[in-house]
Amino acid sequence: MSGEADLLRRLRAMVSDPAARGLMDDVAVMPTMGQQLVFTSDTMVEGVHFRSDDPPETVGWKLAAVNLSDLASKGAVPVSCMLNYALTGNSGWDEGFLDGLGRALRSFGMHLIGGDTVALPAGAARVMSLTAIGEVPAHEQVPGRTGARPGDRLFVSGPIGDAGAGLALLDEGLKEPAELIRAYRVPTPHITLGQTLSPQAHAMMDVSDGLLIDAQRMALASDCAVEINNVPLSEAYVSLRGDSVEARLAAATAGDDYVLLVALSGTLAPPRGLIEVGRFKQGEGLTLRLDGKAIALPGRLGYEHG
Amino acid sequence: MSGEADLLRRLRAMVSDPAARGLMDDVAVMPTMGQQLVFTSDTMVEGVHFRSDDPPETVGWKLAAVNLSDLASKGAVPVSCMLNYALTGNSGWDEGFLDGLGRALRSFGMHLIGGDTVALPAGAARVMSLTAIGEVPAHEQVPGRTGARPGDRLFVSGPIGDAGAGLALLDEGLKEPAELIRAYRVPTPHITLGQTLSPQAHAMMDVSDGLLIDAQRMALASDCAVEINNVPLSEAYVSLRGDSVEARLAAATAGDDYVLLVALSGTLAPPRGLIEVGRFKQGEGLTLRLDGKAIALPGRLGYEHG
Repeated sequence: MSGEADLLRRLRAMVSDPAARGLMDDVAVMPTMGQQLVFTSDTMVEGVHFRSDDPPETVGWKLAAVNLSDLASKGAVPVSCMLNYALTGNSGWDEGFLDGLGRALRSFGMHLIGGDTVALPAGAARVMSLTAIGEVPAHEQVPGRTGARPGDRLFVSGPIGDAGAGLALLDEGLKEPAELIRAYRVPTPHITLGQTLSPQAHAMMDVSDGLLIDAQRMALASDCAVEINNVPLSEAYVSLRGDSVEARLAAATAGDDYVLLVALSGTLAPPRGLIEVGRFKQGEGLTLRLDGKAIALPGRLGYEHG
Repeated sequence: MSGEADLLRRLRAMVSDPAARGLMDDVAVMPTMGQQLVFTSDTMVEGVHFRSDDPPETVGWKLAAVNLSDLASKGAVPVSCMLNYALTGNSGWDEGFLDGLGRALRSFGMHLIGGDTVALPAGAARVMSLTAIGEVPAHEQVPGRTGARPGDRLFVSGPIGDAGAGLALLDEGLKEPAELIRAYRVPTPHITLGQTLSPQAHAMMDVSDGLLIDAQRMALASDCAVEINNVPLSEAYVSLRGDSVEARLAAATAGDDYVLLVALSGTLAPPRGLIEVGRFKQGEGLTLRLDGKAIALPGRLGYEHG
């Protein structure tokens, strides 16, 4: 299997952290120094989490980005990662995938330290997992989903719905606006902002399945109610779909946003880079209020997959 | 997708380590105390690493065992793991898989702390990954593949070839001897022995791809030559295949043994539980000598996959 030998050579060339042992051993070995380690893992499947015609560079970038976004939402500094990769019998695709993955790892200072490569039967859907490791200093809080309190304000770190609109465009065979396609294919994890917000966040996560469903999850975990009263849209989104209530509902249920969702004390001055989208209250459940009017919740709040 | 909701409920019931945050957060968080962490990850694919008709309990056990075997070969104490699991639309299968995985995790004290579940397209080959985390005290050596020296003796921690013979039986539709089938389906990682050997091991790994190829890899990494002069067989293996040179060559190239392969000083009294299989020399390459006679190497030394 020269495909696998080639891939291993490429992977070894991507490796510099001594923890990786040059990818020549069966394990990676990382010394620790009392910090807290934060672990996250995401799997992407062709036809489910990315399109078969997405450029492989963007698939590699996205696999890193979705894991980095989870680290960002915990204020963690990216450290290292393990890749589980299924060879697809198309070495050009594999090469593009590793190029995109490597670019993301370099951009955010995350080191590849190990993993596994396997061969899938011919024709199988591509599948790949990344397990990412970040660190937070000892004794600093790592915000969860559970700490939001009545009176807290809820913020996001960027516009909602761009990625969903980009996917819809691709499904229709369209390529413009390019900004929306890029939001779907090459999301940017908000690593630095996550580190800044983490000490004061009552609760923090990223929006991966849709603003409504993820806000509902935070409220449920925190034993609060949440009212969403704003769905911030990008100019590109509005130019394509307008800003009607329907357009905002579509944005708020689309998923793949990879912006931070953070609950902060209602008395705190809103930090830069954040947009207020709602407020936590006593009680339970999710309500939606746009342009001052109560809006019935759509039947589907977002993606229910893991 | 109630299948996924059911699976998440089952996974949450398997979780007790606070690092897991009850599988209710996006990440797992582990405090560290200056120990060395050892990471390994293995992916198994239906039709490649297990048979479609293997009982799901055994597939779950084996996914844990192959990762635990890597930890064993580094003398690491198992700590925790992340599971990447693709739902297969067969909840009975998923349930059996988790039962077997859970049994292995309990047996070896490894805690599930996170992961990801995804849905595969209908009819896709099952695929699952486990990333395992072990620990070794600070400043203790974590043996690699690189430290074997000329004059070292090479040992294994159990018989060779049983799993390969078990797989061959299943491929022929046979079920006996059950001991060989079990060696293939429910291997036992040699965790305690690995911890005992680790401080004095010049090099250690597990035999996963075949005795000959794995010994060759250790010699190559260590800049030595290695001569294999013994292929220890089980009674069950000999009863089925005899102990001819051909039978021993088949055993030594079969893989899936998950016994430890350890290089120890030639002057050390051989520890209990080990069987000598060869010796390191100046030079390079692999040679084979059985019953006092040089034997030509077979064309295939073992599995070349990762």
